[in-house]
Amino acid sequence: MATDPVRSGPTGPTWSAPVRYAEADQQGVVFNAHYLLYCDEAVGAFCAQRGILAVAERVMLVDSHLRWSGSARWGDVVAVHASCERLGTSSFDMHFVIRTDAGECCRVTTTYVLVGEDDRPTPLPDEVRAALTG
Amino acid sequence: MATDPVRSGPTGPTWSAPVRYAEADQQGVVFNAHYLLYCDEAVGAFCAQRGILAVAERVMLVDSHLRWSGSARWGDVVAVHASCERLGTSSFDMHFVIRTDAGECCRVTTTYVLVGEDDRPTPLPDEVRAALTG
Amino acid sequence: MATDPVRSGPTGPTWSAPVRYAEADQQGVVFNAHYLLYCDEAVGAFCAQRGILAVAERVMLVDSHLRWSGSARWGDVVAVHASCERLGTSSFDMHFVIRTDAGECCRVTTTYVLVGEDDRPTPLPDEVRAALTG
Amino acid sequence: MATDPVRSGPTGPTWSAPVRYAEADQQGVVFNAHYLLYCDEAVGAFCAQRGILAVAERVMLVDSHLRWSGSARWGDVVAVHASCERLGTSSFDMHFVIRTDAGECCRVTTTYVLVGEDDRPTPLPDEVRAALTG
Repeated sequence: MATDPVRSGPTGPTWSAPVRYAEADQQGVVFNAHYLLYCDEAVGAFCAQRGILAVAERVMLVDSHLRWSGSARWGDVVAVHASCERLGTSSFDMHFVIRTDAGECCRVTTTYVLVGEDDRPTPLPDEVRAALTG
Repeated sequence: MATDPVRSGPTGPTWSAPVRYAEADQQGVVFNAHYLLYCDEAVGAFCAQRGILAVAERVMLVDSHLRWSGSARWGDVVAVHASCERLGTSSFDMHFVIRTDAGECCRVTTTYVLVGEDDRPTPLPDEVRAALTG
Repeated sequence: MATDPVRSGPTGPTWSAPVRYAEADQQGVVFNAHYLLYCDEAVGAFCAQRGILAVAERVMLVDSHLRWSGSARWGDVVAVHASCERLGTSSFDMHFVIRTDAGECCRVTTTYVLVGEDDRPTPLPDEVRAALTG
Repeated sequence: MATDPVRSGPTGPTWSAPVRYAEADQQGVVFNAHYLLYCDEAVGAFCAQRGILAVAERVMLVDSHLRWSGSARWGDVVAVHASCERLGTSSFDMHFVIRTDAGECCRVTTTYVLVGEDDRPTPLPDEVRAALTG
């Protein structure tokens, strides 16, 4: 399993986009909640790139920890590197590093749980386990 | 049918809320798209107050025209007066007047169409027609 | 001045992005207000591509008219073609055509007014006029 | 300092609002990022109720930890109880408990740092310290 998601990741980011004008608040920086939105797009891209996009639609968040070290602003491009840090029975942890050209601005660790039709946790299938850590 | 949605409306607004900090952009005013969000909450409240909330979940927008005469800011309370201006076979027009304590800031006219299970237009039932214009 | 913004536009769209998961509502389609957000990004890109990005930060919307003919969904890429349709003394009209691979879904015409430091309308400089219609 | 923010809080919530239609995603639950938005409104209300609203405009988030135990849905009213859990030199921790009528759905702990005109940390004034913990 990845111990350093950035070093072990692909050369490019998992997901990247210019900051949208409406994402900056009147302090001139990206509003805090949008970092979770960026991670959501990144985990979707991460799954799509591994052929398990359906997983992204069937997970619930149970825990998310964000640590900011800087701010993104309008005019910046935000780039998110995502990696899977831990696999449990029904859950997994993703680690996200969010950067702009000016440097790193936020690290996020999020625990997702896979749920079935009944919205209850269901074990991660072997192919999903392989794809998440591959 | 209402000819002046403000005069004919109830004394209080249909929907009202303080401007959220994240709704103001770095110009210090509410970002333009959020006025459609306020109207969406207002039409939901309008329907709920008339016992036809299910209608709000089964409509699609086909046309919306916004005219701004001012700006709402963080610290303001936005109040929306909604009224039904026109009834068609499957569609209806709502008129919204959005105000803050500083005065009117936006008028919006939106045409909604009621859709059935197949996402195709379906005639407005008589009780809906009565509720919208009552 | 452009009479058909689509035909007269460049081959590619002015702005384009995958629909974000959070942009679809529980009807499974992009929530109506986000179309104004897409147009906002498109007018910013339009100005940036013409070297007048500063204009995008100094305009206010006075009028916007949206007409939907379809819906974008998660999994779609939205592409916006923008063109300048009218130049006034201090204002200009932009026309936006929003498409997915499934076809056109929304047309928007928006009137912007350029404002000065005092937030009052100020005449469009000649270089801005040239850039908008060039 | 509060050891149980709920028990020690006022009878009513710090901030409360109906879930907006656009806040639910196509899974039918409030999209995860919006919980940070609710906390942002709650800390603003918390400061306003204590006469230190200006503080809410001059803080940056450095850390936020969210733990979900349920989901809010359209039709629910979300209520947030906020309390100050820790005071540092320039920073303070807020604890938020987010509930609907169906029960608790999310707990959040966020560390804010007060910044000066130069965007650098500045010590919390005594009156702010008193207000936050009063």
